[in-house]
Amino acid sequence: MNITIDVNNFMMEQIGEEHGLRRPELNGLVPRVRSIHAGLQEARKNGAIGFYDLPQQDITGVQQAADAIAEKFDTLVVLGIGGSSLGPRALMSALRHPLHNMLDREKRGKRPRIFFLDNVDPDSHQALLDILDLKTTCFSAISKSGTTAETNAQFLIFVDRLKKELGDKWTEHLVLTTDRKKGNFRKIADDEGIQNFEIPGNVGGRFSVYTPVGLLPAAVAGIDISALLAGASAMAERCQSDDLWENPAYLNAACHYLMDVRKGKTMAVMMSYSDGLLNVADWFRQLWAESLGKRKSIEGKDVFVGPTPIKALGVTDQHSQLQLYAEGPNNKVFNILRVEEFNQSLAIPKGYDDMPDIAYLSGHDMGELLRAERDATMFSLTRRQRPNCSITLPKVTEETVGQLLYMLEVQTAVSGGLYNIDPFDQPGVEMSKQFTYGLLGRQGFEEKKQEMDSTKPGKDDLVL
Amino acid sequence: MNITIDVNNFMMEQIGEEHGLRRPELNGLVPRVRSIHAGLQEARKNGAIGFYDLPQQDITGVQQAADAIAEKFDTLVVLGIGGSSLGPRALMSALRHPLHNMLDREKRGKRPRIFFLDNVDPDSHQALLDILDLKTTCFSAISKSGTTAETNAQFLIFVDRLKKELGDKWTEHLVLTTDRKKGNFRKIADDEGIQNFEIPGNVGGRFSVYTPVGLLPAAVAGIDISALLAGASAMAERCQSDDLWENPAYLNAACHYLMDVRKGKTMAVMMSYSDGLLNVADWFRQLWAESLGKRKSIEGKDVFVGPTPIKALGVTDQHSQLQLYAEGPNNKVFNILRVEEFNQSLAIPKGYDDMPDIAYLSGHDMGELLRAERDATMFSLTRRQRPNCSITLPKVTEETVGQLLYMLEVQTAVSGGLYNIDPFDQPGVEMSKQFTYGLLGRQGFEEKKQEMDSTKPGKDDLVL
Repeated sequence: MNITIDVNNFMMEQIGEEHGLRRPELNGLVPRVRSIHAGLQEARKNGAIGFYDLPQQDITGVQQAADAIAEKFDTLVVLGIGGSSLGPRALMSALRHPLHNMLDREKRGKRPRIFFLDNVDPDSHQALLDILDLKTTCFSAISKSGTTAETNAQFLIFVDRLKKELGDKWTEHLVLTTDRKKGNFRKIADDEGIQNFEIPGNVGGRFSVYTPVGLLPAAVAGIDISALLAGASAMAERCQSDDLWENPAYLNAACHYLMDVRKGKTMAVMMSYSDGLLNVADWFRQLWAESLGKRKSIEGKDVFVGPTPIKALGVTDQHSQLQLYAEGPNNKVFNILRVEEFNQSLAIPKGYDDMPDIAYLSGHDMGELLRAERDATMFSLTRRQRPNCSITLPKVTEETVGQLLYMLEVQTAVSGGLYNIDPFDQPGVEMSKQFTYGLLGRQGFEEKKQEMDSTKPGKDDLVL
Repeated sequence: MNITIDVNNFMMEQIGEEHGLRRPELNGLVPRVRSIHAGLQEARKNGAIGFYDLPQQDITGVQQAADAIAEKFDTLVVLGIGGSSLGPRALMSALRHPLHNMLDREKRGKRPRIFFLDNVDPDSHQALLDILDLKTTCFSAISKSGTTAETNAQFLIFVDRLKKELGDKWTEHLVLTTDRKKGNFRKIADDEGIQNFEIPGNVGGRFSVYTPVGLLPAAVAGIDISALLAGASAMAERCQSDDLWENPAYLNAACHYLMDVRKGKTMAVMMSYSDGLLNVADWFRQLWAESLGKRKSIEGKDVFVGPTPIKALGVTDQHSQLQLYAEGPNNKVFNILRVEEFNQSLAIPKGYDDMPDIAYLSGHDMGELLRAERDATMFSLTRRQRPNCSITLPKVTEETVGQLLYMLEVQTAVSGGLYNIDPFDQPGVEMSKQFTYGLLGRQGFEEKKQEMDSTKPGKDDLVL
């Protein structure tokens, strides 16, 4: 089962000259895409970029460890933020029962409940502590660098609780996923003999879903990670061509790029018409924003580029965002996630035949209603000259989700080339970290605190 | 306890001339805001706009009904979409235990679990059916018009199940919230003798959180709706002034408006530094988008206006969106939701003193870390000349949340005036509904189906 993309509604034939693309415009990008492709493949071969080859990895170790965790524990708590949480979250939502954590163990296929703590809100942490039994809980802390403030704080809190509750056995309730060679978590894992998994040095957080970051929690939950990687492999084959007319990731990237820089569509809405795929849009939101939102070009010039990714949910957001999408400024592209067949069918029964607004629904399936609303919305956006494209999954399975995530990663990498920026760094988040250190009194950052103190406005200014 | 707004970081003194506002610009809006205020108060007095006066309503009936439901049922399922779900969801997340539905009844204060079904995804519906016991479940269907396709489909499904499971007693497991006088749900409620609540005719869905739409589920869950409305009342008093320098809702509206139309900040990010308030940002997303995203001006001219609201979560999105926010195009304003004191304190214990990236965290509280990251992020955005403002809640309580939602409603109403559009209609969603009818074969919409069929691109076009 192949996923497909459809970019017809990006074209002037469908949405007119002002907002639509012409084929020659896309043709004009063919040579550039070819050269970006060559550069990426070069970096892949020399080991600078690692995500491309993850589908070919040997997963025996991860699978065995996951099965052992599933056997031994009733709950897995993932401690991590950003890519350390968004990837596995997306897999869980797409591929497990929507209320997985509320099912009893039998109905969960004897697999643990999975919780993600990806913020430092004390109320959320205490809430989880209220329902956790540490004796049957395993914690999986994920940080490539071992310097992530949020994960380190969580780590200190839960290690402390584990030690108090379990004594020497605390290390058995902990798994670390971190860099192969360096960093604090690597040292802790080695020093204390804690089970651990490796993130390759050439794979960044937002591209790490096919490392143990995504695979371990997924496998613990019972997701078939072998099928997932098979899907990714299949997409890797489809993305081998350097011709944007043949490579779905490249065609999508080229369209999105032109829409942003030539047509002023500065926002890219990924609208999932499936509850389960909404977290894929959330995962993509990081991938797209952090990879493409950049100040400096490759040559170091100020460019301040990057489309703003927005996640939305169909049909729900038709009752929240559609008014704006349809009638507001024409400054967005819409990327519709379509699912052709849902796992469940749910017939809408007969009733209230005398009420036309109810009666017409009888005899249809809920999935049919969802699909009709989805296609009607795409059509109405097209009628209003709003550029929209779609990605269709015949069904949501390990195989199709595996394809989808891999395609979006490839799309992001080539988009970096189109924007002429480095899609693999994130220099912009450093400043905020340094001011945080200053506020928390970390040694060496006293000046940062002073800088903040000295630039506060007067107390009575513009505060109501 | 008053919430406060702070718009200093919108001003040129803080973020420079290119991106910042000058006080004279805001002063220039004073007369217009005064006149918009007069118009809104006129419409309020003549009964055209109802949301202003909701805090003064008598809630005895809703409270009694809610207590009876809480006593009799173990689960409440809310069937509704858009405003029918976003308001009560926001209240639940902000004011109940973060894992309310996973607690046992005793720990929930003997209050029911609350589920919201606000999509038509069959997989989500079946998932909920997997864990529901209909004998102890009450369904609350909400639709002002009674024409909402999604809610009507849900209604047919659950009425059918209730009848099969409970026979004649099915009506006792159902509550309807709908228009006072007209529509299908009104007729059904009257004909079948189903308990029901009224949405005033002059209150639209997105302004309905202080009608039984929001209040009933909240009260069932044990939220103090009297304190909530007291908070709203307190804010109503603070919003009486027609002077934008004295009215927090007006000052915020004026700043946001100028940022959009004069400074090109087309996106308004509401970033909640509290897990519990994230759904307030989601509620606001509908309020802002559906109210302000309009094609036609009051005079009927094409204007295509409206800022795009985006919800974000701090600190989580610092590891997802901050790179873009800080270094991408300077085309957004940031509205930071700040909470000064969390409900729980959670100390970060000592440990790993030899690792500087971990050690500096010891001795701080999780809430302190969150606040430091938040203020550091605001400061770094300011340093990069990115306009940001904040709304501070001393603590998240019924009273402060009551203030917050009311303020944002008033802000939205006056913003409609500034954009010179009608903030209370939503004409843009109709087209998509009609095409849906066409696809589902509803009588009278055959032409819509034909229109869609006749404009499809060729099968092989731009599909990969």
